[in-house]
Amino acid sequence: MQIAMIGLGRMGANMVRRLLRAGHECHVYDVSADAVAALVAEGARGAGSVEELVAGLEAPRSVWLMLPAAITGDTVSTLLGALSRGDAIIDGGNSSYRDDIDRAEVAAAQGIDYVDCGTSGGVWGLERGYCLMIGGPDGAVARLSPVFAALAPGVESAPRTPGRDGEPSPAEEGWLHCGASGAGHFVKMVHNGIEYAIMGAYAEGLNIIRNAGAGVRKAEVDAETAPLREPKYYPFDGIDLPEVAEVWRRGSVIGSWLLDLTAEALRQDPHLDQFAGRVSDSGEGRWTSIAAIEEGVAAPLLTSALYSRFASQGSDLFANKVESAQRFQFGGHVEKQQ
Amino acid sequence: MQIAMIGLGRMGANMVRRLLRAGHECHVYDVSADAVAALVAEGARGAGSVEELVAGLEAPRSVWLMLPAAITGDTVSTLLGALSRGDAIIDGGNSSYRDDIDRAEVAAAQGIDYVDCGTSGGVWGLERGYCLMIGGPDGAVARLSPVFAALAPGVESAPRTPGRDGEPSPAEEGWLHCGASGAGHFVKMVHNGIEYAIMGAYAEGLNIIRNAGAGVRKAEVDAETAPLREPKYYPFDGIDLPEVAEVWRRGSVIGSWLLDLTAEALRQDPHLDQFAGRVSDSGEGRWTSIAAIEEGVAAPLLTSALYSRFASQGSDLFANKVESAQRFQFGGHVEKQQ
Amino acid sequence: MQIAMIGLGRMGANMVRRLLRAGHECHVYDVSADAVAALVAEGARGAGSVEELVAGLEAPRSVWLMLPAAITGDTVSTLLGALSRGDAIIDGGNSSYRDDIDRAEVAAAQGIDYVDCGTSGGVWGLERGYCLMIGGPDGAVARLSPVFAALAPGVESAPRTPGRDGEPSPAEEGWLHCGASGAGHFVKMVHNGIEYAIMGAYAEGLNIIRNAGAGVRKAEVDAETAPLREPKYYPFDGIDLPEVAEVWRRGSVIGSWLLDLTAEALRQDPHLDQFAGRVSDSGEGRWTSIAAIEEGVAAPLLTSALYSRFASQGSDLFANKVESAQRFQFGGHVEKQQ
Amino acid sequence: MQIAMIGLGRMGANMVRRLLRAGHECHVYDVSADAVAALVAEGARGAGSVEELVAGLEAPRSVWLMLPAAITGDTVSTLLGALSRGDAIIDGGNSSYRDDIDRAEVAAAQGIDYVDCGTSGGVWGLERGYCLMIGGPDGAVARLSPVFAALAPGVESAPRTPGRDGEPSPAEEGWLHCGASGAGHFVKMVHNGIEYAIMGAYAEGLNIIRNAGAGVRKAEVDAETAPLREPKYYPFDGIDLPEVAEVWRRGSVIGSWLLDLTAEALRQDPHLDQFAGRVSDSGEGRWTSIAAIEEGVAAPLLTSALYSRFASQGSDLFANKVESAQRFQFGGHVEKQQ
Repeated sequence: MQIAMIGLGRMGANMVRRLLRAGHECHVYDVSADAVAALVAEGARGAGSVEELVAGLEAPRSVWLMLPAAITGDTVSTLLGALSRGDAIIDGGNSSYRDDIDRAEVAAAQGIDYVDCGTSGGVWGLERGYCLMIGGPDGAVARLSPVFAALAPGVESAPRTPGRDGEPSPAEEGWLHCGASGAGHFVKMVHNGIEYAIMGAYAEGLNIIRNAGAGVRKAEVDAETAPLREPKYYPFDGIDLPEVAEVWRRGSVIGSWLLDLTAEALRQDPHLDQFAGRVSDSGEGRWTSIAAIEEGVAAPLLTSALYSRFASQGSDLFANKVESAQRFQFGGHVEKQQ
Repeated sequence: MQIAMIGLGRMGANMVRRLLRAGHECHVYDVSADAVAALVAEGARGAGSVEELVAGLEAPRSVWLMLPAAITGDTVSTLLGALSRGDAIIDGGNSSYRDDIDRAEVAAAQGIDYVDCGTSGGVWGLERGYCLMIGGPDGAVARLSPVFAALAPGVESAPRTPGRDGEPSPAEEGWLHCGASGAGHFVKMVHNGIEYAIMGAYAEGLNIIRNAGAGVRKAEVDAETAPLREPKYYPFDGIDLPEVAEVWRRGSVIGSWLLDLTAEALRQDPHLDQFAGRVSDSGEGRWTSIAAIEEGVAAPLLTSALYSRFASQGSDLFANKVESAQRFQFGGHVEKQQ
Repeated sequence: MQIAMIGLGRMGANMVRRLLRAGHECHVYDVSADAVAALVAEGARGAGSVEELVAGLEAPRSVWLMLPAAITGDTVSTLLGALSRGDAIIDGGNSSYRDDIDRAEVAAAQGIDYVDCGTSGGVWGLERGYCLMIGGPDGAVARLSPVFAALAPGVESAPRTPGRDGEPSPAEEGWLHCGASGAGHFVKMVHNGIEYAIMGAYAEGLNIIRNAGAGVRKAEVDAETAPLREPKYYPFDGIDLPEVAEVWRRGSVIGSWLLDLTAEALRQDPHLDQFAGRVSDSGEGRWTSIAAIEEGVAAPLLTSALYSRFASQGSDLFANKVESAQRFQFGGHVEKQQ
Repeated sequence: MQIAMIGLGRMGANMVRRLLRAGHECHVYDVSADAVAALVAEGARGAGSVEELVAGLEAPRSVWLMLPAAITGDTVSTLLGALSRGDAIIDGGNSSYRDDIDRAEVAAAQGIDYVDCGTSGGVWGLERGYCLMIGGPDGAVARLSPVFAALAPGVESAPRTPGRDGEPSPAEEGWLHCGASGAGHFVKMVHNGIEYAIMGAYAEGLNIIRNAGAGVRKAEVDAETAPLREPKYYPFDGIDLPEVAEVWRRGSVIGSWLLDLTAEALRQDPHLDQFAGRVSDSGEGRWTSIAAIEEGVAAPLLTSALYSRFASQGSDLFANKVESAQRFQFGGHVEKQQ
């Protein structure tokens, strides 16, 4: 079917490629003329502006946005001016689901369908397919199902869950209509919250193994360092972390795609010397914890993962200074130099 | 090669089967004569006592224990009385790595090798193979390598990590000599700590999605319940959790074996009505957090996962009562009835 | 000076009493005519409606609201219709500081000052005085300073901080102009977040002491319960908690008013049998954690305290069921009955 | 009564002074002759060695140790060789309660009483008195009660808990016999765990207030930084933290001695520029969390406080690098420079 894509970065361009391979007719636009040209060379139809892009489509039009969250809002406004009743906007970026709810309300007043599509797969999606979590009106989602099916990995990308047979459900193909506008990004948001925690779980565990030789390292003897009560139980200096990550990939309970990536990273750079340990967070992790709090639902793991990232960014410095100051006040403790 | 197995429960019996299939000569013993008989019928050689088992082996003997942690210590003592210099004991159960360190010291004084082997794979190991994390003397581990290779899943059970080629390392086959006695159970312990956190991450995320309709449920209006500031952002009642778990299995960043199992559990029983939510913990999770604390290494995720299990067991009841009592004291707040 | 109070519940009525004692002229209104009558008997001037209340005041008028958060918004709207340029509204309740920011904007457009006043002190405030955290325009806050001074505890209620001498600052009297409208409730919000964590700290600590006899209690011997490695280190059954709370009140580093209340609660009911352990949360704790997340600042303690309350309310039940289901899937573990 | 003190550092010397003031006969020893001389000048009787100290005492002897935990064990061994049946050793330092249990067993075999005394009060104890948490045999504790009474702050140091009247209990005087040997340090250990959490609670809260102007600071616009959805709600740049800490000291629910110290620290140095934010931990915090874990009791706040200290010491660097590496692997995300 005919589909337009605005935003041809890492994600958008590869999604167009995957759609072209499946035989869909792709119209593309980006602020970078080079990005447009590259895809035109691969079979897409290019446009020089949003208006030109829209003008080239047949009704009902479907325009997919793959843009940084900060720009999406303005582009949606532009599009709402250019589209007509019955058309659909699909936001496949990392928008807050709250923006979807607000924008869908505005779009619906014009008879335009607003579809949000949380997209997971990263730089690997072209090859592996994208996992799609979708919110929006039933009719629009149904009309767009060939697009979703082309982007999704397909049922054969994982063994079927025992007990599922017959015609695979869309979820088994790798795309799911989760509910009304916003529901797709809501599920994707939680997905990312879970992702943070799984990443953090491996990170903490590997760090514990890396320090398993604490008993044989020269202990500092001073009043500010708690001595190890039984150093004989921490003799394991130098456990081979790349091999540990590798062995867990086969037969263990904790095998996962994130473990595969961890094993690859450790193989390339066993001490990860190229990284400084400043971990960014990109919004969904924050929003997931906020949703938990507003729902009154405990999420200690997901929020701990987020807070560890904040701490890695240095934002707890003042809090730590307060504690050092308190210790100095009540005990005369002077801070230890590193 | 010749190997003896003591303990023919769910794990031990299946490991013997996997070893028999690989052509190894298995001598078996269990307190249950039926368990012995069942494996004799499948080709193992049975014994009626530990002494008889040992008597039937050629030196250097290799005796593998697959027993509950509470019984392992006594059996090791018995074995140390029956074995000779150059023999090896392998503990494949869920012992604390500290017990390994203590026992290896005693065994070494008699010239007996003590090998600890953390084993992951659960009830699925017979089919999938077992992930083996091993500690102990180099010579003994080398001598036992055909046994480890037979139990492990083999390199073909997962795609090779990019950059690894040529002859697969043992870790790529699914078994790893991690270090001295105790190192195997140490790595297995941390593996379980990670497992708790990954399980908890999915659990918390799914719970947040399950409550995404908080804005449309009848809110209680009283001074003891915090009202939702913007209920319009929690309209998603009834998102289909079995389908969400399913869609995440294909193409997403959070695909894993634990997710596969979660999807299967939700398919069978979407509301998990058969469970009461009392989550047991079996030791390794506790020991992992203790190791982090003694090493001076932060592990907020792994410990949160553990504490959530404790709370599910009801152990925080008194702490909660203290807070209710404090609220009553300073604000006259009376506890809300459920 | 002349001040009007709307809302004569536990907090509002006592604040009027404290103002009357200081010689201020108090005009009062409440939906309950009895509440009005009670204070009229103590020297206040009563009104039968908001409009009547406003009509009885001289410009510039000052109307203080002490209402449940859910009602405050409507009352502000009513007041904005009745008041005139130069008047002031003071919200002393538990409103979100975000509502203050929104309402101050509306009020400012009419030339009305909006002052928010976070109030701590609970049922004890009449006797001890109230700690006041204030936001709003400089002029209005200055004009109202006699009211704040009368409500606050006064400098003599605590020893002066070393290094502070001369004329006490308002903060030393117990009231502080924190910043623009909303800043008062922001600081009060964080105050409550801290309060949750201090309460939780005592609660957790007392619970650990209560379980210090874990080594002498009959341990359950089954595969689903982690055995205590060294029970000899948990012999302290029956440590007297009311006396522990009492001894900490004198000379220790952790003395506090919340500890005083805890000691009193434990003296009255050592096992806290009258409480069920269902701990309510009233909004500020949630908003504090949300503020931390939006600021990108780690607050693991404050959020843990909140999540413990959520868990006490039963909201983690489904998450726990997911973990039990996962354990059943991979290990065949059947849930333990309580 | 007659009492000997070994260890005349900050704590030990001041305790001797407090005992002398109460009229007790103090025999003192320290490796520093100057420290001994200083107290002799104030009325104590000095000794040049442990043996000389013991020789100068009448049976039954009472020797109090106020030493770094690392040295206490050896001194106890020396003392056990010098003392006689019926004598008592009191360890007032920061030993692990597990050492008490082990040492009391050895001492009891010689008929010597082992008393452990957790001591809180820091550098302020001389003036305020010490809070004493005591474990050991009934007879020895009773015999030493005049010493405990002299060191403790006395009932008048805090208002009596409502409902307590008549003769004050020892706990009301500031000392408590908690149970058998080790129980004193156990209660003191938990006290310190609570202390960490209360300190952390203020630290986190003040940090949130310090960042309340996040909406008016120039936001970085890039894909690696989550944008603030509603910056209008974070306009409070520059709230005066020293004044906030001060106002909370009067009338609020969160008043405490640690808050008093925090207010003093902030008064001296509002931005705490003299501190680097590297917070030490001294053993008890670790042991408290380990006790919680071994008891199977959740302590998320106390452990979070500990982990925040670990993170401030830089021990989570490798874990953070793992997460940065994972992000690079799946999304091509390059770490942001500070």
